[in-house]
Amino acid sequence: MDKKQDAFPRIVIIGGGFGGIQLAKKLKNKPVEILLLDKHNYHTFQPLLYQVATGVLEGDSIGFPIRRIFTHQKNFTFHMAMVQKINFDNNTVIADAGEFEYDYLVIATGANTNFFGNKELEHFTMPMKNIAEAQNLRSLMLQNLEKALVTKDKAERDALLTFVVVGGGPTGVELSGALSELREYILCKDYPGLCNADMKVYLVEGKPVLLGAMSPQASVKAKQFLSEMDVTIFNSVHVESYDGNMLKIDDGTTIKTRNVFWAAGVRGEVPAGIPPEIIAKGSRIQTDEINRVQGCKNVFAIGDVSAVISDANPAGFPGVAQVALQQGKQLAKNLINIINGEPTTPFVYTDLGTMATIGRNKAVADLRRLHFQGFFAWLLWMFVHLMSLAGFSNKAIVFFNWAIGYFTRNSDNRLIVHHFNTKTMMTDPVAR
Amino acid sequence: MDKKQDAFPRIVIIGGGFGGIQLAKKLKNKPVEILLLDKHNYHTFQPLLYQVATGVLEGDSIGFPIRRIFTHQKNFTFHMAMVQKINFDNNTVIADAGEFEYDYLVIATGANTNFFGNKELEHFTMPMKNIAEAQNLRSLMLQNLEKALVTKDKAERDALLTFVVVGGGPTGVELSGALSELREYILCKDYPGLCNADMKVYLVEGKPVLLGAMSPQASVKAKQFLSEMDVTIFNSVHVESYDGNMLKIDDGTTIKTRNVFWAAGVRGEVPAGIPPEIIAKGSRIQTDEINRVQGCKNVFAIGDVSAVISDANPAGFPGVAQVALQQGKQLAKNLINIINGEPTTPFVYTDLGTMATIGRNKAVADLRRLHFQGFFAWLLWMFVHLMSLAGFSNKAIVFFNWAIGYFTRNSDNRLIVHHFNTKTMMTDPVAR
Repeated sequence: MDKKQDAFPRIVIIGGGFGGIQLAKKLKNKPVEILLLDKHNYHTFQPLLYQVATGVLEGDSIGFPIRRIFTHQKNFTFHMAMVQKINFDNNTVIADAGEFEYDYLVIATGANTNFFGNKELEHFTMPMKNIAEAQNLRSLMLQNLEKALVTKDKAERDALLTFVVVGGGPTGVELSGALSELREYILCKDYPGLCNADMKVYLVEGKPVLLGAMSPQASVKAKQFLSEMDVTIFNSVHVESYDGNMLKIDDGTTIKTRNVFWAAGVRGEVPAGIPPEIIAKGSRIQTDEINRVQGCKNVFAIGDVSAVISDANPAGFPGVAQVALQQGKQLAKNLINIINGEPTTPFVYTDLGTMATIGRNKAVADLRRLHFQGFFAWLLWMFVHLMSLAGFSNKAIVFFNWAIGYFTRNSDNRLIVHHFNTKTMMTDPVAR
Repeated sequence: MDKKQDAFPRIVIIGGGFGGIQLAKKLKNKPVEILLLDKHNYHTFQPLLYQVATGVLEGDSIGFPIRRIFTHQKNFTFHMAMVQKINFDNNTVIADAGEFEYDYLVIATGANTNFFGNKELEHFTMPMKNIAEAQNLRSLMLQNLEKALVTKDKAERDALLTFVVVGGGPTGVELSGALSELREYILCKDYPGLCNADMKVYLVEGKPVLLGAMSPQASVKAKQFLSEMDVTIFNSVHVESYDGNMLKIDDGTTIKTRNVFWAAGVRGEVPAGIPPEIIAKGSRIQTDEINRVQGCKNVFAIGDVSAVISDANPAGFPGVAQVALQQGKQLAKNLINIINGEPTTPFVYTDLGTMATIGRNKAVADLRRLHFQGFFAWLLWMFVHLMSLAGFSNKAIVFFNWAIGYFTRNSDNRLIVHHFNTKTMMTDPVAR
């Protein structure tokens, strides 16, 4: 058992995403002992995963070692640990790296891909919620372009060159835009044998519009941008099945394809030990307005894994980085207040705006009442994402890649370092 | 069967290493059709693998897509293919991506790790001949540091913190130096809990000196540098066995360790179909002085997989990039001469020098009769390696990482993206 080190109360945080990192930072120099647990030894900047997947960025440039973030924070400890169970009775977290005692626990485990219980889709489609998955997506895409060059079977070649993105939220829109740009700027340069072949990009969304969480202006413009970039968009339809070869949509359409990328939903990563009665829609843990888990005194949940559902806010907050960041900041204050026996302040979400990029010079932005699209939205999107990246090196390397990419319309990051095994649908464990 | 496209003779090159790439480049605008096959879709800059392994560089920055190198070379085609067999009777190469016909074949498959037939060492020690293996090494090292922090077993913690590098050539010297620097500059910053723990670095070499292929001055100075950096060096001894826990050396020494990195030898990657009687020592294909494979008319071998052994040169050429580059260049000329029915010119190796870096401001260099060590050797080493990297982006990103590393004595690349599974001793196929 790993017990607390000193007289200060110990706050254990599970998850080094936006919420967990922000909370730990805001507790710097406070009279608490912080222990952060994460299954990775790094923080992932998820908004840029699609650029790793499409070979614009290297994976390492959107990950930042958690230990590096907290080098100078004396009340902070990190352990890389896969959490197996929370034991509320003993106030401990049980993980592969040991059992950790807490005075206060904050669950900030984020969200993972939601296949809505469909095992076939889970097996055959490609999710993209971490760097390894983004690299798998890149490997599959590049391997299939290689295969398309040598196959003699026309139908198989078409299937290898058909890319279906499921989900018309920011991830799906950005991913299908990036695939279209790859077709426009890279295909003829890198694969002259496929220059005249028909690479197809589809985007499938269940709602009648793309970017449903954004303004109508953003939705309409995103669809227009993608259509101009020759992305075929299906709205108001759902994927019925995909067996690795044929995708069926519930309007009767079938698409023969070897590449189906799944960005159609997320679900909270709820650790074992949470009573099912407090798990809300989307597998999120129900909390009160200070992010305290329902029925608990000293357990909290923030970010994508939490649901602050009230009569005034029946859907809860959107699953975006801003909510996690603001909840982390607020909870830091409230935890200190609780420890000091002072009153807490309810969480209030300040919507700073939403953006999505579709391609070169093409983005959509909603900033409060301001809706704009095109070049300036795209510049702003780049600026905000660059500034949000952890670490000077990552900022510099991502900026450098973007600048080079902008001028050359190319990138050097289309490597298949870990082959993706299409039989097992997993990374090939053998280092080639 | 993939047949040649036009009236020009087709040269098939197997391997996109230094030799194969150089040969293909030098055949630009010549009346030949070039087909390059490689199991990777990128060229690897092997001399910097140890910096990927130790978290100084990201893997992608030392790989460069082969297709990108040849974007503007019209007589060049690439296929990503695992070669299964060469069929000399039909003049074809049989690979997973198809069967490829050749008029002239050049085998440039390089070398892989040599475990000298010891299956136990092959299973339990970590090789480092490609980017995936270097990343595995990095993952194992970082995972073991994480484990060392949480284990309660003192002996196990010591084993997790004990690093043994086998092989005192440039790779082993550079790797053990980098491990020592990690201990000096990183351990206390990133792992305060291990700051006072005893991380040990050993270097084990069979010969009486390190860097046996270099000058005595370089050997002595490298040993001095490493000793000053607290690397324990064993000379004139051999590893007898390693079972994943205990390393046995033939002088009776045993070392309990969880990290054994194998850089003790290489062997040519000879494709199936080569008659055993022309395979020389070190699994290299015996060629004549124009790199033509013994007993063949239209098959050649260059670089690490070839052995140009003669009475005047009984050991053949050293397995270094310079030999491969120069052989590739010379063979380009000779192939054109052969096609034109003109006389060929024997290969003559010009030794431009050898360098190895041990750490910050510490390198050794032999340039013809000039032997120097220390700061200027280190600057030169960096300059030469930077200039040799393919692509402007890679040069810039590696330079940036080195500059940042020099001033901060730190790096942001210590990520475990693909977990290494210590049970199977392979990359974990599941994306966390």
